[in-house]
Amino acid sequence: MQRYKIEVEYCGTNYCGFQKQFLPNKKSVEEVLTKSIFQFCGQEIPIFASGRTDAGVHAIDQVVHFDLAKIFQNHQVALGLNHYLKQSQEDVVVKSCQLVSSQFHSRFSAKMRHYRYIVLNRLAPPILEKNRVWHISKTIDLEKMRLASAFLIGEYDFSSFRDQECQAKSPIRTIEAISIINEGEKIFFDVSAKSFLHHMVRNIVGTLIYVGIGKIMAEKIPEILAAKNRQLSGPNAPACGLYFLRTDY
Amino acid sequence: MQRYKIEVEYCGTNYCGFQKQFLPNKKSVEEVLTKSIFQFCGQEIPIFASGRTDAGVHAIDQVVHFDLAKIFQNHQVALGLNHYLKQSQEDVVVKSCQLVSSQFHSRFSAKMRHYRYIVLNRLAPPILEKNRVWHISKTIDLEKMRLASAFLIGEYDFSSFRDQECQAKSPIRTIEAISIINEGEKIFFDVSAKSFLHHMVRNIVGTLIYVGIGKIMAEKIPEILAAKNRQLSGPNAPACGLYFLRTDY
Repeated sequence: MQRYKIEVEYCGTNYCGFQKQFLPNKKSVEEVLTKSIFQFCGQEIPIFASGRTDAGVHAIDQVVHFDLAKIFQNHQVALGLNHYLKQSQEDVVVKSCQLVSSQFHSRFSAKMRHYRYIVLNRLAPPILEKNRVWHISKTIDLEKMRLASAFLIGEYDFSSFRDQECQAKSPIRTIEAISIINEGEKIFFDVSAKSFLHHMVRNIVGTLIYVGIGKIMAEKIPEILAAKNRQLSGPNAPACGLYFLRTDY
Repeated sequence: MQRYKIEVEYCGTNYCGFQKQFLPNKKSVEEVLTKSIFQFCGQEIPIFASGRTDAGVHAIDQVVHFDLAKIFQNHQVALGLNHYLKQSQEDVVVKSCQLVSSQFHSRFSAKMRHYRYIVLNRLAPPILEKNRVWHISKTIDLEKMRLASAFLIGEYDFSSFRDQECQAKSPIRTIEAISIINEGEKIFFDVSAKSFLHHMVRNIVGTLIYVGIGKIMAEKIPEILAAKNRQLSGPNAPACGLYFLRTDY
């Protein structure tokens, strides 16, 4: 058996998320990739992703691994899978492929995960970036959001930023960095951690936006963290603005 | 009569271009905007654009003007038109509106027009930017393209970069600037001139890309210009990578 690591870009709009959901309406990215692997080499195999993104969330560099019986060259696998993904008109593409040791695991070997969240801050709704950004027309105070974000960096119990359906055993996570950058009409939130709770990035961005528009005081963040109560933080920012950016191994 | 100037963003993919084409299949951006103005205030009026973009070409800031019998506040016009554009699920939005003097003309008052062309240079086809970029997988030499572009800056007879259907009286145009910037997997070509011939930006980009991939020598550009022969320049770059960026008045 040879292990393969692929980097995948996808638009999450028409999928129920990375993982198979057993829902009748929408396919998962996992199903689509699994099918293309079967079409490429006849193997029906499990695949493993670095981050199990939710419905509507996009990926710029999702990392996936799987084992094939045969040894192929990198580009053969990428070209082969892309051929079938294109044929089925899927919004998924393999950007690169590497042969890796069987010690490598896309999820468990990850040292750091990076997510990006994009807000479009202007009066008019998005057209060229429809389903790619969270549109907010209110004035947003960047400095207040940066002040608030500083309270979230480090190791904390993130229960206040965790979805009630989160299945993680511990609510303790360590945020390494949050950068908030403004470029034209867009605001980019880059959030890095070894791992995240369910909806954690979106709940953090929703809370920071509430700070930015004056609905939550930046100085209240330590109190919100300490309360371990999801009711006190801001809304879950919409999935369409979130991108799985990169994994460090 | 009060003249209004609006800034419009659109995704060109599903339109036959800015101008009405009397084709049965695809609507024009002009028709869509004219309809929304009629829905907003009951007037059926002509509208005028700074740049008459082709089918598939996008606009980040297209400038349009028209005259209405009534005086509305800026935001009333933008909100009103956007209401009807959204209702009809059009890929067109009004970003801003200004009341201007009747001396202002979106097309004839323009001092400079800026177009942007985006190339995605990587092996894998685009997913998140499908229909928004020209995908090229070959290696592109930026320095050679910059060298070639320098020969195109200034006043020349651009017959070699003009579509055969171009209706302009004179083939002489003045290119003020071409900048070629590389950001990650993308190459941005920003081209500025008071006015352009039909397909001129796309023919220039197609030629520069031919230089970048080694099919045309950069040093041949003066010869191609002097020949006034469209057969000698590169291909017409696809519409999906082109954006009408901005007009200076």
